[in-house]
Amino acid sequence: MRQPKIPEVTIRRLSMYLRYLKDLAEKGEKVVSSAQLAKACGLNAAQVRKDLAYFGEFGIRGVGYYVKDLLEHIKKSLGLNREWRLAVIGIGNLGTAVLNYRDFLTENYRIVAAFDRNPEKVVGRLAERSGRPVEVFHIDQLREVARERKIDIAIITVPPSEAQKVADKVVEANIRGILNFTPVQLKVPRGVIVKNAYFTTVLDNLVYLLQFKKR
Amino acid sequence: MRQPKIPEVTIRRLSMYLRYLKDLAEKGEKVVSSAQLAKACGLNAAQVRKDLAYFGEFGIRGVGYYVKDLLEHIKKSLGLNREWRLAVIGIGNLGTAVLNYRDFLTENYRIVAAFDRNPEKVVGRLAERSGRPVEVFHIDQLREVARERKIDIAIITVPPSEAQKVADKVVEANIRGILNFTPVQLKVPRGVIVKNAYFTTVLDNLVYLLQFKKR
Repeated sequence: MRQPKIPEVTIRRLSMYLRYLKDLAEKGEKVVSSAQLAKACGLNAAQVRKDLAYFGEFGIRGVGYYVKDLLEHIKKSLGLNREWRLAVIGIGNLGTAVLNYRDFLTENYRIVAAFDRNPEKVVGRLAERSGRPVEVFHIDQLREVARERKIDIAIITVPPSEAQKVADKVVEANIRGILNFTPVQLKVPRGVIVKNAYFTTVLDNLVYLLQFKKR
Repeated sequence: MRQPKIPEVTIRRLSMYLRYLKDLAEKGEKVVSSAQLAKACGLNAAQVRKDLAYFGEFGIRGVGYYVKDLLEHIKKSLGLNREWRLAVIGIGNLGTAVLNYRDFLTENYRIVAAFDRNPEKVVGRLAERSGRPVEVFHIDQLREVARERKIDIAIITVPPSEAQKVADKVVEANIRGILNFTPVQLKVPRGVIVKNAYFTTVLDNLVYLLQFKKR
């Protein structure tokens, strides 16, 4: 299979375009110009054209791009032309927030299960705080449920002291992608991909740098 | 004033230690060993000792560290020996989630105001979804409220098309730190610090890499 080659910063912009193009498609818009895309995403038109050149030449000179074509091209490039099945592991405050946060996920992401050391305890909280219930399993069922429900990605929201142990279980369950909401630098074998998405430590880092600034 | 010199990856671990030390202090624990800290944070003891060496020698050989001393040292180094005052700008679904997410903030962070283009519209939603209400202002009041309430950091959760415009207003309001929850690469003058904390695009990036893996 072809190797990944789009730089991370471009991918970030492509996912911005994707969200905007979906809005346009829903509104029934047929065509979009690079200027219009640029404006919606806070970029300049030259940057947009450069990014879209990754997909070869399929703009229409003097008109722009067909919304549907561009949408499909970007989806395909990003791997979003299929469903990705997610599980949230660790349903404390953070896990609950992530479950509520799923409104921001596109329709290609689906949370198919939640896991906790104490599933009975968290079910009540989930029902109370979240509109759409997700089935909660014991963490020891991870391997079995991962196979049955074809889980692609584990979102880890356990306490730091548990994070590596849980990551090991995720690897054993043959889940290949991890979105890590803990501040721990997880160790995983080759073939498993971890991306970090904590936020409190990002804030701590911001403050660390800010303290040296004069007000 | 001395210049920042602790690497970002160390800061990340320091904020982990901080959270654990606070737990210990609350439980009345007096002393902690590097092995204990390491276990709680999923690290090895040598790494912990190396990190803490940034603060000079104040471990007690064969015993460990005094919890309170270590806590104060780390807080001081990270700039968390004072209160940081935050504002959330853009109270859509994402802004609301961030406001709910504030349970994860330590006591040094305080959300003192929220801003929106349409404050009347969002007040109801906030009351409904969040236990602790925050006063919501019109975005045009940013400069005035920032001065009155001494806002240090703006958390930007507006749509991408608004992000740069809002960042410009933040800069005009003399706010020096931005936590950016949009996927836009914000342009700010020297002296203002931006840290990115989006999560959906992190997930898109993970999926982009995963699609090249065999299952």
